[in-house]
Amino acid sequence: MAKNQKKQKRNPTPKLSKSEKRLAKWKARAKSLADELRVLTAPLAKKVIVSPLAPKDGFPLLPEIAGVEFAAAQAGVRYKGRRDVMLARLAPGSVIAGTFTRSATRSASVLDCQAKIGSKAGADRGADRGAAILVNSGNANAFTGRRGWISVETLAQSVAQKLDLLPSRVFTSSTGVIGEPLPHERIIDTLDSLIDGLAPDGITGAAQAIMTTDTFPKGAMAELEIGDQPVRIAGIAKGSGMIAPDMATMLVYIFTDATIGQRQLQSLVSRLTDSSFNCITVDSDTSTSDTLLVAATGQSAAPAIDDMRSADARGFAAALEGVMLDLAHQVVRDGEGATKFVGVTVTGAANNADAKRCALSIANSPLVKTAIAGEDPNWGRIVAAVGKSGAAADRDRLAIRFGQISVAAEGMADPDYVEADAAAYMKQDDLEIGVDLGLGRGKATVWTCDLTHRYIDINADYRS
Amino acid sequence: MAKNQKKQKRNPTPKLSKSEKRLAKWKARAKSLADELRVLTAPLAKKVIVSPLAPKDGFPLLPEIAGVEFAAAQAGVRYKGRRDVMLARLAPGSVIAGTFTRSATRSASVLDCQAKIGSKAGADRGADRGAAILVNSGNANAFTGRRGWISVETLAQSVAQKLDLLPSRVFTSSTGVIGEPLPHERIIDTLDSLIDGLAPDGITGAAQAIMTTDTFPKGAMAELEIGDQPVRIAGIAKGSGMIAPDMATMLVYIFTDATIGQRQLQSLVSRLTDSSFNCITVDSDTSTSDTLLVAATGQSAAPAIDDMRSADARGFAAALEGVMLDLAHQVVRDGEGATKFVGVTVTGAANNADAKRCALSIANSPLVKTAIAGEDPNWGRIVAAVGKSGAAADRDRLAIRFGQISVAAEGMADPDYVEADAAAYMKQDDLEIGVDLGLGRGKATVWTCDLTHRYIDINADYRS
Repeated sequence: MAKNQKKQKRNPTPKLSKSEKRLAKWKARAKSLADELRVLTAPLAKKVIVSPLAPKDGFPLLPEIAGVEFAAAQAGVRYKGRRDVMLARLAPGSVIAGTFTRSATRSASVLDCQAKIGSKAGADRGADRGAAILVNSGNANAFTGRRGWISVETLAQSVAQKLDLLPSRVFTSSTGVIGEPLPHERIIDTLDSLIDGLAPDGITGAAQAIMTTDTFPKGAMAELEIGDQPVRIAGIAKGSGMIAPDMATMLVYIFTDATIGQRQLQSLVSRLTDSSFNCITVDSDTSTSDTLLVAATGQSAAPAIDDMRSADARGFAAALEGVMLDLAHQVVRDGEGATKFVGVTVTGAANNADAKRCALSIANSPLVKTAIAGEDPNWGRIVAAVGKSGAAADRDRLAIRFGQISVAAEGMADPDYVEADAAAYMKQDDLEIGVDLGLGRGKATVWTCDLTHRYIDINADYRS
Repeated sequence: MAKNQKKQKRNPTPKLSKSEKRLAKWKARAKSLADELRVLTAPLAKKVIVSPLAPKDGFPLLPEIAGVEFAAAQAGVRYKGRRDVMLARLAPGSVIAGTFTRSATRSASVLDCQAKIGSKAGADRGADRGAAILVNSGNANAFTGRRGWISVETLAQSVAQKLDLLPSRVFTSSTGVIGEPLPHERIIDTLDSLIDGLAPDGITGAAQAIMTTDTFPKGAMAELEIGDQPVRIAGIAKGSGMIAPDMATMLVYIFTDATIGQRQLQSLVSRLTDSSFNCITVDSDTSTSDTLLVAATGQSAAPAIDDMRSADARGFAAALEGVMLDLAHQVVRDGEGATKFVGVTVTGAANNADAKRCALSIANSPLVKTAIAGEDPNWGRIVAAVGKSGAAADRDRLAIRFGQISVAAEGMADPDYVEADAAAYMKQDDLEIGVDLGLGRGKATVWTCDLTHRYIDINADYRS
C-alpha cells in the first residue's frame, strides 16, 4: 500500500481509459504527421502549381491588333527573375474606355485613370498623339498616401516624355502588395529598354508580366467582320481571388482595331462589365485596384461603328462581350484553391437586380462553396442563401436544380429527387446551380468557384 | 549507340532534371502522407472535439428561476443515445418576447412563434394559464412545405392539451437538418415522460438537448436587486456557425423572474438583440431558424418594472444585455473551426449604421479571417474590407490598430509600426481589431472568429 502510494507520487499521471489512450495516440501521431507534412509541402507551395481548371490548351494565340505594340521587362519591383512591368503603346487616334473598382480605398492609379477617362473633355484630348498603358506587378501602390500620387504622376510624366504623349494619355496600373511605397524609379530605369522592345506581337509577355499569384496567364480573342473587313479584339487579364494573398488585384486590358467613338465605347464597356466582371466572385472580397481598360485604335479597314443599334454594332458588342466573359471566367478558374467552376443562375425573380443579389448570395456563401468542394449536393444551404439574400422570395415557390436534376420544387424536396444522382453530378469540374424564385421574370447568372483547403493554405498557412 | 537506342525504347520515360525529380519525390511523399493523415484523423473528426475557445470553467451554475421548470428527453428525432428534445413550462402570468431570423426562407416554427408574439392582442392572451416552450434538435422542419405547418400545429396542440394551456401559448423551435419532414410523432411519444420530468433545476439538460454541432452547451446568468429583492436571469443557447453543417441553427432561451409587461420586455429585447446577437458572425450565413425567446415569470418578490427610464429598469436592461452578450460570444467561441475570438470595433464613422456595416465587412472577409488564422497582421486586407463595405470612408483618414498597436494612420502605414510586435500580438486567443474612419461619431463592435482548415473539414470533407 505504502509502496503503491510512493509509486503514485513519482508518477502522478491519472490513469487513462483505453479509448482515451487510443485518442491520445492518434492525436500525437496526427500532430507529428501534420508537422512533417507541413515541412514537406512548404517547398511545394512555393512552386507554381497550375489551377486544375486552367484552359487545357494553354494561352491562346492572340491576333496582332493594328496600332498596338507591347513590351515587358524585369524591373525588380518585388519579384526576382521574372518580368513584372509591361508597356502598351497605342497609335494616334486611339480611344480608351474603362471601368474601375468601387472600393472606397482604391489606389492612386485607379483614381488617376478614372479622372483621365471620366472627364468628358479629357477623354479624347490629346488622342491625336496616341496613348500608353504602363502596368507593374508586385506592388499595388495602394494605401500609400501622398507618395502614391507622386509615383503615379512621375511614371505618367516619364512615359509621356519618352513617347511624346500628353501625361493625361498615359494610364498606369499597379498590382501587388498593399501599403508599401512603390519603388517607381526601378520602373523608370526600365523604360528605355521597354520602349526599345515594343512590338506588335508582344502581348503574351505582357500577360505574364502583370501576373501576381495567378497560376496561368489569361488571354482571349475574337474576330468579326464589319462591312466585309476584319475587326480584331485581343485581351489579357490577371486575377486569382478578388484579392490574392495581399495582392490587389484584378486587371484587364482589351485592345481592338475597331473604329468607334469614346463615348460609344465607354457606354458599351460599362454595360458589358455589369454582365461579365461584375458577375464573378471568388471570395466576396473587393480589390482596391480593379481596373478594366478597353482601347480602340481605329486602324482596321472596317467602317466606323456609329449607330449602336445597328447590326454591326451589335456584332461588335457580342464579340467584345465574348472576350470579356472569357477573361472573367478565366479569373474564376484561377480562383485561389479552386477545383470547381460553378455557374449560378437565378430565374423567376421579381426583377434582374433581385436575381443578381440572390445569385451572388449563393455564390458567396462559404457553406455552399464548401459543400461544392466536398461534392455534396447540400441544397439546404442554397435555401438558406436564398433566404438571407434580401431578394424577394417565397419559400413555397422556390425550385432548385443541379444541372438538369430537379432537387426541390414548391418549397420542398422534389419527390422524384434521388440524392445519388446529384452526388454523381457534383463530381464534375464544371457545375450549374439553378434556382427559380417563381415570382417574376428577373434573371441573372454569376460564376464562382469552390472553397477548399488550398484557399486556407494560400491565405493563412504560408505567410509571415 | 544502337544499344542505347534500344534501352530508350524499352523505357521511354523522358529524362527528368534533378529538381523535377526532387519535386516528384516530394509530391509522392506528401500525397502518401496526406492519405495517411486523412485516414488517421477521420476517427478524430467524429469525436466531439471541444472548441479551444470554450469557457475554461465549463457550463456555469445557473440559478433556478421561480415559475420555470425544465425537462429533456431522448425522442430519437435523428440522433441516437442523447437527449434531443426539451420542454420548459412557464407559470401563469408569464410574458414572452422574441426576436427571429429575417431570412425569407424561415421555418414554419419561426413563422408560428412570430405570429403568436407579434399580434398585440395575442401576446398576452391566455397568459393567465401559463405557457410552454418545446424545442427539438436533429431536424429543423425547414423547407418542408405544408407538412412543416402540420408538425408545428400538432406539437403545439399536444403540449397545450397535456399542460392545459392555449395552443397560442405553446412556442416550438426545431433545429437540425433542412428539407426533411419532422417525425413529430416521436416527440409526441416523449411528452408524458417530459412532463413527468419537469423540474426547476433542469436547465443544464435543456441546454444539452438543443445542441446540434455545438461542441459545448452554452449558459449564462445574472442576478440583480430591484427594491432590495433579488431578480434572476438565466439563459441557454445553441449555435456553431451561422448554419452548422446542414443544421439550422442559432436558438436562445432566456428566463427571468422579473415582473415586466410584455410590450416593455419586447422593446427591450428587440433593442438588445441589435447590439448582441445581431453583432456576431461566424461565416456570414444566416439561418432559417434563428430564434430568441425571453420569458419573464413575474414570480420574484421585486416590484414590477414599469418606467423603462427608471434606474431599476436600466439595471435590469444591463443585466439582460450581459446575459445576451455572454451567450452571443459563446456562439462565436464555438464557431466552426474557430481558434481565435475577434472583436472588431469601428469608430469615427459617419453614423452607427455605417460603423456596423464596416465592422461586419471586416468580420466577414474570408481574407481577414484566414490572415487571423495564420496569425498574420495583414492589415492591407482590412483596408480592402473597409473599402468594399459601402460605408462612407476616406482612405486618407483611415487608422487601424491591432489591440493597442497602431498599424496605420492617415491613410498609410504608421511610421513607428513594427510588424514583429503585431505578429506577437496575433498569437493570442482573443484579439481586438480597431478601425477609426476619422469622419464622425458613429461606432459599433462586432465579434467573429477566424477561418481555418477545420471549418473546411467540418463543412466539406466529412459529409455525403
